[in-house]
Amino acid sequence: MAAVRIGIIGAGSAIFSMRLVSDICKTDSLMGSEVVLMDIDENRLNAVSFLAQRISDEFDAKIRFSTTTQVDEAISNSDFVINSALVGGHAFLERMRKIGEKHGYQRGIDTQEFNMVSDYYTLTNWNQLSYFLEIAQKMENNGAKNPWLLQAANPVFEGTTLIHRQTNTNMVGFCHGHHEVRHLADAIGIPMSQIDWQVAGVNHGIWLNRFEKDGENLYPKLEEYFNSRKEWHPKDPPDDQLSPVAWDLYSFYGMFPIGDTQRNSSWKYHYNLETKKKWYGAPWGGFDSDLGWKWYQDKVYTIAKTLQEMMKMIMEQASATKDLSVKAFINENINQFPEDIRDQVNQIFDHSRLSGEQHIPFIDAIANNNPTRLVVNTMNSMGKDETEVVIQGLPNDCACEFPAIVDGRGIHPEVLAPKLTERIIKWYLMPRIMRMEWALEAFIKKDRSLIVEFLMRDRRTTSYEQAKAVVEEIFENNG
Amino acid sequence: MAAVRIGIIGAGSAIFSMRLVSDICKTDSLMGSEVVLMDIDENRLNAVSFLAQRISDEFDAKIRFSTTTQVDEAISNSDFVINSALVGGHAFLERMRKIGEKHGYQRGIDTQEFNMVSDYYTLTNWNQLSYFLEIAQKMENNGAKNPWLLQAANPVFEGTTLIHRQTNTNMVGFCHGHHEVRHLADAIGIPMSQIDWQVAGVNHGIWLNRFEKDGENLYPKLEEYFNSRKEWHPKDPPDDQLSPVAWDLYSFYGMFPIGDTQRNSSWKYHYNLETKKKWYGAPWGGFDSDLGWKWYQDKVYTIAKTLQEMMKMIMEQASATKDLSVKAFINENINQFPEDIRDQVNQIFDHSRLSGEQHIPFIDAIANNNPTRLVVNTMNSMGKDETEVVIQGLPNDCACEFPAIVDGRGIHPEVLAPKLTERIIKWYLMPRIMRMEWALEAFIKKDRSLIVEFLMRDRRTTSYEQAKAVVEEIFENNG
Repeated sequence: MAAVRIGIIGAGSAIFSMRLVSDICKTDSLMGSEVVLMDIDENRLNAVSFLAQRISDEFDAKIRFSTTTQVDEAISNSDFVINSALVGGHAFLERMRKIGEKHGYQRGIDTQEFNMVSDYYTLTNWNQLSYFLEIAQKMENNGAKNPWLLQAANPVFEGTTLIHRQTNTNMVGFCHGHHEVRHLADAIGIPMSQIDWQVAGVNHGIWLNRFEKDGENLYPKLEEYFNSRKEWHPKDPPDDQLSPVAWDLYSFYGMFPIGDTQRNSSWKYHYNLETKKKWYGAPWGGFDSDLGWKWYQDKVYTIAKTLQEMMKMIMEQASATKDLSVKAFINENINQFPEDIRDQVNQIFDHSRLSGEQHIPFIDAIANNNPTRLVVNTMNSMGKDETEVVIQGLPNDCACEFPAIVDGRGIHPEVLAPKLTERIIKWYLMPRIMRMEWALEAFIKKDRSLIVEFLMRDRRTTSYEQAKAVVEEIFENNG
Repeated sequence: MAAVRIGIIGAGSAIFSMRLVSDICKTDSLMGSEVVLMDIDENRLNAVSFLAQRISDEFDAKIRFSTTTQVDEAISNSDFVINSALVGGHAFLERMRKIGEKHGYQRGIDTQEFNMVSDYYTLTNWNQLSYFLEIAQKMENNGAKNPWLLQAANPVFEGTTLIHRQTNTNMVGFCHGHHEVRHLADAIGIPMSQIDWQVAGVNHGIWLNRFEKDGENLYPKLEEYFNSRKEWHPKDPPDDQLSPVAWDLYSFYGMFPIGDTQRNSSWKYHYNLETKKKWYGAPWGGFDSDLGWKWYQDKVYTIAKTLQEMMKMIMEQASATKDLSVKAFINENINQFPEDIRDQVNQIFDHSRLSGEQHIPFIDAIANNNPTRLVVNTMNSMGKDETEVVIQGLPNDCACEFPAIVDGRGIHPEVLAPKLTERIIKWYLMPRIMRMEWALEAFIKKDRSLIVEFLMRDRRTTSYEQAKAVVEEIFENNG
């Protein structure tokens, strides 16, 4: 049992922070730890901190929380730093998108083949990548012994590659997309606990290379499910694991795409709203259509607002009633949250359920030498023998996502069996990796002409002048 | 001095064959060799053979020529086989192009980013790739000791990679694009003989990594030339080594593109005829515009027709006059050829000048252990240690083009110094290699759906249905 110091950067993001905080409070082996919550928005930070401390107290976790607006304070002497900050916030992304659309780039210039996720900016948010590097560099000599940086903010693929190449900080990138495997398990009616599965690829481009039960390949059952299915309708825009697009990608690539991978492909599924609806289902046409993204933005806004109101109420009541139970209060007021996230909110206050985020299990695995299976983003070569890679056929020096056992000695990747199909390597991952390289060079050299050149390979570009103009306007407004 | 047996496949292509034949007749160390001329067009073949024999006699080269319409005869027991055959001929290419254009693909679907050369078909001419393989397979046990296959027909990049991967035949691919370096030497007024140069890349994507005189880098002189130049006009469509596009590519990639490389880039220079004119010069807009390609097709037709007529006249005169000199005859009638190819025709009959094609010097180098510097297409790893590659940063198992010393023991690549720029590797060669892989997989599996998928990444595609329709129509007419 180890008490550690954890810094959380971007902790004002209430729902994500509460998930992490409650995970810490439920992990007995981290009892007595210290958590530094950092954000530039003090009001949101104070609310999160107050709630966090109450949860710790109610769970008797003995976690000490403090707050800061200074990134250095979250990093200094911290054994683990979790970075979930989005520099500029969603407002910045929408501003850049709007400029792109003005110049003929539907959904903005960061929306690219094999990277269509609407908040995964690799071309225009240089401030985000700079912040990644700044944090990683500060961690190189932060006073702790072998500290770890846990990257939660996107773009995880570009960020993990960049930080590994340019700093000596121990760093791992996390995403929760792989949890979507459970939808496939549900479809064939087999509990996840009985399934032996692996996923591999790069962040937001991962593929189900293994899907077995007692040594039996379950892919035929998946095919049966899809072939016998009459109709399918998404329950909301992100609901695409069982969508026609997933099935179509499987048909071509030979393995199932998982999680955000369905959103990231060629323009085949994205030419226009009609095309999107066909593949991702009506009425939204998926997560990354104008409709789908608006749905998501509205939801995020509603949740944040509800949470803020509730926090305010809790804080007011707390000063009046000494023995207020936050859990009980949330329970009484759960109906104020949108129906589809009530379970998520309840989970935070349910001692028996972790959030599914991998950050705290990772910290526990490292700090307490508690072997844990996680899906991590780290370098394909793992820094050992450069020619020995986890995903064969991919370069050794780029970040990949794969399952690994994590313990006190670090990250031990699983051997992938079977290997990813050649088609996934050559038709999907290599093109995506190529674009990662282009984006990183542009960022490292701060060379706008490279973004223009990137756009010369974009189907929406019809002239050099168009590409030049959009890049100029974006970087003039990119302060 | 070694007399060898050489098979030439596609020998009916008069001008190319006459260049090879005259090179053989001028290479004393190949005296007494046997040449088997193979083509499916007997008339053209007989004319070439007749002329070839006359040249040999006039040069006293003691070469024996025979003709055949059977590919096996050209291969059996041949020490060297040169394949220059284009299956289906230019008529096939134009038919496929027309179908492509009907479906909205300007210049046809084989015209692709980084492969815009109008007769370099990688997607639709599976018969050509099959023929490459058929010849290479037949050579595996052709009766000769360590025979060599010399690939002259396009696509050399895809073909060389394919043959090396799928057969055990000694094989090398040739192109003459690197000779264009001399235009750069001319521009700065330094004789080629004084220049120390290297080029490297993949076929039709080669870059001038070294350009020096007595250890002095000549790139500053090139910059001076381009910066001080007032105006520039192409003398004909292929004249692009000093065009604005070459300069623009240099500005981005950091080294000069050479030969056909100027034609092969992103759509930046190819969006439409106006764009092409801007970069490649008016009135044609380069080799691969509708105008430029028509100019070239007309010229090829005129040359072939003139040559045929002349051959007919020579044959008629020869039966009347025993001591007819072909050289004298051509000399007298040289004005019948288009002005800009007269020198090329004269060269054939000038004993002191070789054609510049590399095939016969290669044969001489191997057969007579005569060390010769050539620019070859062969595997990047050269089949030795798989991790030791000629062009660093590129995969070991794809065909690359680079300078090498060839002698009786084989091909010895030069060490490239300086190395290609990272930008050439990551922004040019990797995308081109990726497309080679896609094309080869489609061919090997004979999977049309892969061509459709290829087109999903093509800027001209606006719907899946469009791509599917064009591929269907092409392969229905692809007998």
